[in-house]
Order: sequence, then structure tokens, then C-alpha cells
Amino acid sequence: MPNALQFRLKTTAGAARRGEYTVNGRVVQTPAFMPVATQATVKALGTADLIALGVQQIVCNTYHLWQRPGEELINRAGGLHRFMGLPDEASAILTDSGGFQVFSLSGRKGVGVDIPAEADKKKPLLRRLDEEGAVFASPIDGKLYQLTPEVSMQVQHDLGTDIVMALDECTPYPATVEETRRSMELTHRWERRSIDEHRRLNEERGTSRAFFAIVQGGMYPELRAESVQALGELNADGYALGGLSVGEPKSLYNEVLETTASLLPADKPRYVMGVGTPVDLVHAVGEGIDLFDCVLPTRNARNGQLFTWSGRLNLRNAHLKDDFSPPDHDCDCPVCRTYTRAYLSHLTRAGEFLGLRLASYHNVYFYLELMRRIRRAIEEDTLPALQQRIYTAYESMPK
Amino acid sequence: MPNALQFRLKTTAGAARRGEYTVNGRVVQTPAFMPVATQATVKALGTADLIALGVQQIVCNTYHLWQRPGEELINRAGGLHRFMGLPDEASAILTDSGGFQVFSLSGRKGVGVDIPAEADKKKPLLRRLDEEGAVFASPIDGKLYQLTPEVSMQVQHDLGTDIVMALDECTPYPATVEETRRSMELTHRWERRSIDEHRRLNEERGTSRAFFAIVQGGMYPELRAESVQALGELNADGYALGGLSVGEPKSLYNEVLETTASLLPADKPRYVMGVGTPVDLVHAVGEGIDLFDCVLPTRNARNGQLFTWSGRLNLRNAHLKDDFSPPDHDCDCPVCRTYTRAYLSHLTRAGEFLGLRLASYHNVYFYLELMRRIRRAIEEDTLPALQQRIYTAYESMPK
Repeated sequence: MPNALQFRLKTTAGAARRGEYTVNGRVVQTPAFMPVATQATVKALGTADLIALGVQQIVCNTYHLWQRPGEELINRAGGLHRFMGLPDEASAILTDSGGFQVFSLSGRKGVGVDIPAEADKKKPLLRRLDEEGAVFASPIDGKLYQLTPEVSMQVQHDLGTDIVMALDECTPYPATVEETRRSMELTHRWERRSIDEHRRLNEERGTSRAFFAIVQGGMYPELRAESVQALGELNADGYALGGLSVGEPKSLYNEVLETTASLLPADKPRYVMGVGTPVDLVHAVGEGIDLFDCVLPTRNARNGQLFTWSGRLNLRNAHLKDDFSPPDHDCDCPVCRTYTRAYLSHLTRAGEFLGLRLASYHNVYFYLELMRRIRRAIEEDTLPALQQRIYTAYESMPK
Repeated sequence: MPNALQFRLKTTAGAARRGEYTVNGRVVQTPAFMPVATQATVKALGTADLIALGVQQIVCNTYHLWQRPGEELINRAGGLHRFMGLPDEASAILTDSGGFQVFSLSGRKGVGVDIPAEADKKKPLLRRLDEEGAVFASPIDGKLYQLTPEVSMQVQHDLGTDIVMALDECTPYPATVEETRRSMELTHRWERRSIDEHRRLNEERGTSRAFFAIVQGGMYPELRAESVQALGELNADGYALGGLSVGEPKSLYNEVLETTASLLPADKPRYVMGVGTPVDLVHAVGEGIDLFDCVLPTRNARNGQLFTWSGRLNLRNAHLKDDFSPPDHDCDCPVCRTYTRAYLSHLTRAGEFLGLRLASYHNVYFYLELMRRIRRAIEEDTLPALQQRIYTAYESMPK
């Protein structure tokens, strides 16, 4: 059986890659940024917005949807696209494994250690973790859930996603080399079980969902290389760099990214999960990364912060109160063409819902436009100039 | 000088009136419902939404905008249309006088009595009330504001509204006939001062804003008749029925509405402020009312309640969880064409902003579609059937 995802590299510029893939008939231009639709909605945006924005792929969170409204209900709705009212051709959907929320949010600090007696009421309470998987109590319905590689695959397939993510363990930071190796090897065994179950489900149901493996290995380049090697044997449809942006210093993040990215299979999409700022994006693209997802555009919008071509703009700044110019002078989105900084500032101060909706729309537009410009820059071999523009605007360097 | 507002009665059916008016080049078909944009936003909806919805007139609250962001700032922005990003031709704007919030929300129970020593932190603290007007402390900036007929006119003109409302006193309920008369006579003197100042401002600035007078008289038909008579002499551009929906029994509300509506000038638009439910609307139209405004469609949306052609639909109802049918089977709005009850139910349960936005959009659409059908029903002389349909769907009669 051919891979469910066909990736085609169109051109490269240094390590940067300009590509395209098709999954279940849905086409994604890379490098791509995927807005996050945690609970089957990109916060404050409807499907008409996603279509108008030109979103090609979104990320939904298995952990949340599994508990509410449940994968069974979404399956009966006809899968996530139908459930969300997203036209079949509008956008591909990638789901995560659910592991990140269970392992990281539960406050556990390492394999088999530090399981808290009581958890934050909003966070899953991890009850047991072993080779098989994890048992946790849901903060939503209080019920016990078992998360194993097989369960994660079943839930993701039931959700009707296009790209399934392997169940891995996100190695905490800091961790010793021994802890990291132990965690990584667990991840490798889980990912093998993940892809086996994934393939079984595709075969049993006649579906062609794609599967991404996740490379771990913490902050140790030699373990990262070993993880790439081990997981390469799975012949997954794509490879993610996991365990980054978990609290490590930026210099370490960059070091791991730069040394690991080049080791990943060249003929598959490469994905850095949960990344990042505009600076992170233009930098990682330069290292050969193709896919990103992050809650920053929508989360910062809710805090009144806009991403613009001149850097961050805080809508609560006093001097914006009577600034009748567009939110971002260099942006062509409907928000910037329709409204002023003064109006957005007013909405933010007044606590009006429209303020965060307009900020969310603009921020997602900005991220997607940044990716469009990145793709063009790779084609025209002008990526360094675009990187420099972003580094200057955001007064920040990648290292 | 001709009246700033040209009202044309197209046809009638019994007491019901099908009309049209033009104000500052903006055309409004009546009977019309005006969504409320308290803080210069119809909650959760942007101007593109208002245009798509076919909104022809909205109501903005002078009290709120006066304090934040201030009429001076909105004036510098070029007026409310520009400030809100509303294209010039998109929708007319009516502003209230600011009096309702100061007098009613401050908790005062009658003229010169019951001024509370301390007020709700979110409500204005009335400091002084006399013939001249009122002084109150703003809950937003703590500053003292003076609201007089002249100030109300100046603020509304500065906001750049199309229709200015007179400053009246909304007579509380219950009130004795003596209290009501005293309050009504104060209203008449304030409205005379209002229209004088309004005309002065129009002349001074070369504008052609329209002016609506507000009939008071409480629950006493003879005082209502006296108020209509006294205010008729102002030759205002339109007449509102004030002091309704202030806690009186439905039967009393209907009695006052029915006896007063027919007394109002036939060649001017007639407006019932702050009304109401779908039942209220079809009933009042039958009594000859042309204009309505109410926060119900957006407020109820925020509480997860939809107005549909089959009655109210509470999105928190358990049986909607896996109901994959449209929110309203008889509605053609984009929400009902795109999403299911199950999805809206999920968004509501998950506390997602998108849920209240979609519910707001649908509810405003429903109200505007109801008005479209009302206008057609008057033209086709089938209003009673439409009224009956609404009474049945909402299991409620107007009296």
C-alpha cells in the first residue's frame, strides 16, 4: 500500500524546503502553519473564517475531544470535518496523541516519579503509568481513562483525522541522560505499537489516514540521532521533533533543532510541535522544518496582543486610544482594512468579545501570511532577508 | 427646513403599518428591529456581519460611549460609523439619551426620592437630580458627569448619530398618578429643551440629524394621551413610547401600548424602546408600531439560547448533544446551513467563544428575518397568521 501522504519537495534554499503534500485529497503547501482548534474550534473563528483565511491544515487535540464530546459522538457526526462544519476540501486535520496533556499537564516530572497525590482541578490526574500506557482521571467528567498507543490510535481514527500522531512520551526538561534514554526507549516501543495499530485500523476500515512519528531524545544530540535512526525504520508519513519548547533555554532549543532537523528523512514532512513565535518560525524553516502549530496567535489575541510586521502591538497601550491608523500598516487582512487601532483598543478596554475575535482573526492571518511569504522567499532564495526583517521587527534573534 | 427624516407609509393592514424612511441617505424599511450596539459593537458581531445580516439600523448607548471612549474621541474618529468601521451606507444609527442608564440603573425609585447612599459598583451613582438635569459618578472612571437635555444633545451630535433621542425621565413602576404626572411634566420640559438644543446644533454644524421625542405617562392612559398631545407640538421626526417594560404586568403593558400607539402621529415612525420578544414584536406591529430595539437576541445567545421558528432552543439541553440536525430547521442563515445542534451544544458546554458568536449571529438573523416576514405579511395582509405562528411557537400570547 502506498503511503497515505504524498510529499513532494518543490525546491530548496540552503536547508529550507518548499514542498507540498496531499492527504485524503487535501493539499497542504509547506512550510505551513497550523492554527490550533483544541476543542474543534480555532478559538473565536468559524469555518467560514478558516476558509477565508486560506487555512490548509489545523490541529485538534485528542485529549480534549476524547473526553468532550467524545470520539464516539464525533464519529457518528461523520468525523471532525463534518462535526465542525468544515467542507471536506477546506482543510486537512492533524490530531495529536493526547499524551502531551496527560503526561505534561498532570505535573509529572519524569518516568515513574513525582506523580502528584492531588492535581490541579483543571488538569488530568495521572493514576498509573507503566509500559502499557497511562490511566488518568478526567477533570471534565471525573471518569478514569486509559491512554495506550492502541487507544490513542483508535480515538484518533474515530475522530476522522487526516494525520494521526504517534503516542510518545514528551521527555521533561531538565532530565539526565539516563532518564532521557529510558523515556526515549519507551517512546520508541510506544510508537511501534502506535503504527502497528494505525495500519491495522486503516486496513480494517479501508481508510488512508497518514501517520507521523515523533522523535525524542531530550537535549542530547546523540540520543536525538539514535531516535531518528530507530523511528526511521517505521517508514512513517512524516516526522515530528517532540520534546522541544518544554522550558529549555533558547540556545539549547536551537542547538537540538539544528542538529536534529538535518537528520530527519528528506522525503517526508518535518514538524516541530507547539512552535512558535514569528522568530521561531522563520528560523526553523531555515533549518529545514516544514510544519508548525501553536496557540500563540489566538492566545495572545485574547490578551490583546497583535502580531504585526512591525513587531508585537499591545492593544492596551495608552497611546493607541486615539490612533486612527490600521492595526498593522503592512497587513491586508479584513481587520486591518476595516478597523482602527483606536477601535480595537476601545473593544479591548471595554472587554468586548469582538475585540478578541478581531485580534484572533488578524493574528491567524498574520501567521498564514508569514508562511506565504516564507514559501515565496524559499522559491526566490530570499529567506535570509525575510528572517532579518522578522528578527528586527521582533527585536529578537533565534540565538 | 424640512424634517431630517422622511417617512413614507407604503401600506397598512388594520393598525399595522408598512413604511420606509430615509435619514442621512440611509434607508430603513419598517417595521424594523434594531440590534443593540451598546459599546459601539453588536456583541460578538463585526461590521461585515452586520452588512451580511442586512441590518439597516442599530442602537448605540450614549451613556456608555460618553464615558468610554468618550464622544470627543469618537467625533475625532469621524463619528460612530467611521469609529465602528461601518461603511457610510451600511446602517443608520440611533443613539439613546443616556437617561435610562443614569436614572434607572442608579436604583432611584422616583423623582427626588430614594437616591441611594451607595451604588452598585457597576452602576452610576446619582449625586443630584433637579430641574436642570442629573449629576452622577461614573462607575468607569469615577468622574462626575452632568446629564442635562443640552448635554445629551451635544454628546449625541458629537457621536455623529443619525437619530437623536430626547432626554426624558423613564417613570418607574409602580408610581402613583401624582408621581407619574410630575415625572411626565419634567420629561416634557426636558424634551422641549432637547429639541431646541438639537435644532441649534443641526443649524450650527450644518448637519441633518433626526430627533425622536419620547412619550411618557406611566400606566395611566389619560396621562399617555396628554403626553402625546404635548409632545406632538414639538413636530419631532419620530415618536417613541417610553416607560414600558419597566416591570409592569404584561396585561398593563399591552393596555398602554394599544391605547397609546393609535394616538401617535400617523406620519411619523413609532418606536417602542427596549422591546422585546418575538411575541412582543408581532403583537406591537399589529398595534401600529414601526421600530424596536432589544438586547434579547445577543444576551440570550450568550446564555446559550436560540430563537427559532419553533420557539426557544436551549443549547444546554441534554438531548441536543447528539442532534445532528440544523439549529433551526426553518432558518436559512449561515449558522443553520453550516453547523449542527450537536456542534453548538458542544461549543456551549466547552465555554467556547465561537458558540456565543454563532448563537448571536443566528438570533440577530432570526429577528431580522422575522421583521422581513412581518413586512411581507403586512403587504399581503396576512399578519394574523404570522402572529399566530409566533404565539404558538413561543407558547405565549401577548395578553
